Amino acid sequence: MATAARLNDLDFSTVASLVDAINDDPQTAATVWQADVRWRGGFRSEAAIRGFEPVPSDEPEGLAGSNTAPNPVEQVAAALGNCLAVGYVAQLTARGITVNDLEIGVTGELDLRPFLGLAPGHAGYSRLDVSVRIDADTDADTLQQVHEQVVATSPVGHTLANPVPVEVRLVA
Amino acid sequence: MATAARLNDLDFSTVASLVDAINDDPQTAATVWQADVRWRGGFRSEAAIRGFEPVPSDEPEGLAGSNTAPNPVEQVAAALGNCLAVGYVAQLTARGITVNDLEIGVTGELDLRPFLGLAPGHAGYSRLDVSVRIDADTDADTLQQVHEQVVATSPVGHTLANPVPVEVRLVA
Repeated sequence: MATAARLNDLDFSTVASLVDAINDDPQTAATVWQADVRWRGGFRSEAAIRGFEPVPSDEPEGLAGSNTAPNPVEQVAAALGNCLAVGYVAQLTARGITVNDLEIGVTGELDLRPFLGLAPGHAGYSRLDVSVRIDADTDADTLQQVHEQVVATSPVGHTLANPVPVEVRLVA
Repeated sequence: MATAARLNDLDFSTVASLVDAINDDPQTAATVWQADVRWRGGFRSEAAIRGFEPVPSDEPEGLAGSNTAPNPVEQVAAALGNCLAVGYVAQLTARGITVNDLEIGVTGELDLRPFLGLAPGHAGYSRLDVSVRIDADTDADTLQQVHEQVVATSPVGHTLANPVPVEVRLVA
């Protein structure tokens, strides 16, 4: 099964090991993820994640930034699209289906007034809309089943669609 | 006031123009943000945002990825920290306070079982904890006021802390 194991350039054997480990000890499923942000002047900052090159952030000039990088709400839209991509490829690969192409467009609507202090209320996205284009060697019914499974299990999708406690503390 | 206008390497004149424009026509505050994700094989993808270099995404090897970039849930943690950084610098600058240093650590807890199909329920972060270290030329009371204002107006903070409708459609 060496060929099947590399379908869509994925090797699921590590996931099988992880599932075995979680079945042995459910605490293995309790993960913690981290980002360390450092301010770089103006509205520029960088997020250090594990050993990767820090990810830059900025705001457009219309929001007093210097427009050197995507802004934080765009980063959220990107994270949602990237997470859904993992979901579709995982679900299709688990069914033995070759993926030829996958494009995911994410748009989000946001009223700037609460952020700018011009109105009270919800400063975040009011909604997010995602369009998924998949070219895969399967039929429409299977794609629809995959789609429903992806939406039902997306970590970033669920983080956005549900209220998550966010605790912000000043430590110095 | 040329010096004050560049406090913390920020020029707030563009924000004043934006506020004027919104006061003239509240529809100006209705913004749309976008990311276009393209699959690159395995669990690798790239998010194109405006004209910037596409932002890469991947999963760790333990989740069947090739570990070439932060994963989507780490990207969410980074976006939260970057957004809060903008908030603190904006609020401090608006008060004429010099910021010397700002570091924001974000950690999020996530149960992998729903994502892996091993349990039903919430596949996203169960909580996010943020530690903020600010070195600024002000006193603790002012910092606390700034902190409360930032938390009350953070676009990414509010996006995560509140339920946001996420509509995912298969279009091909």
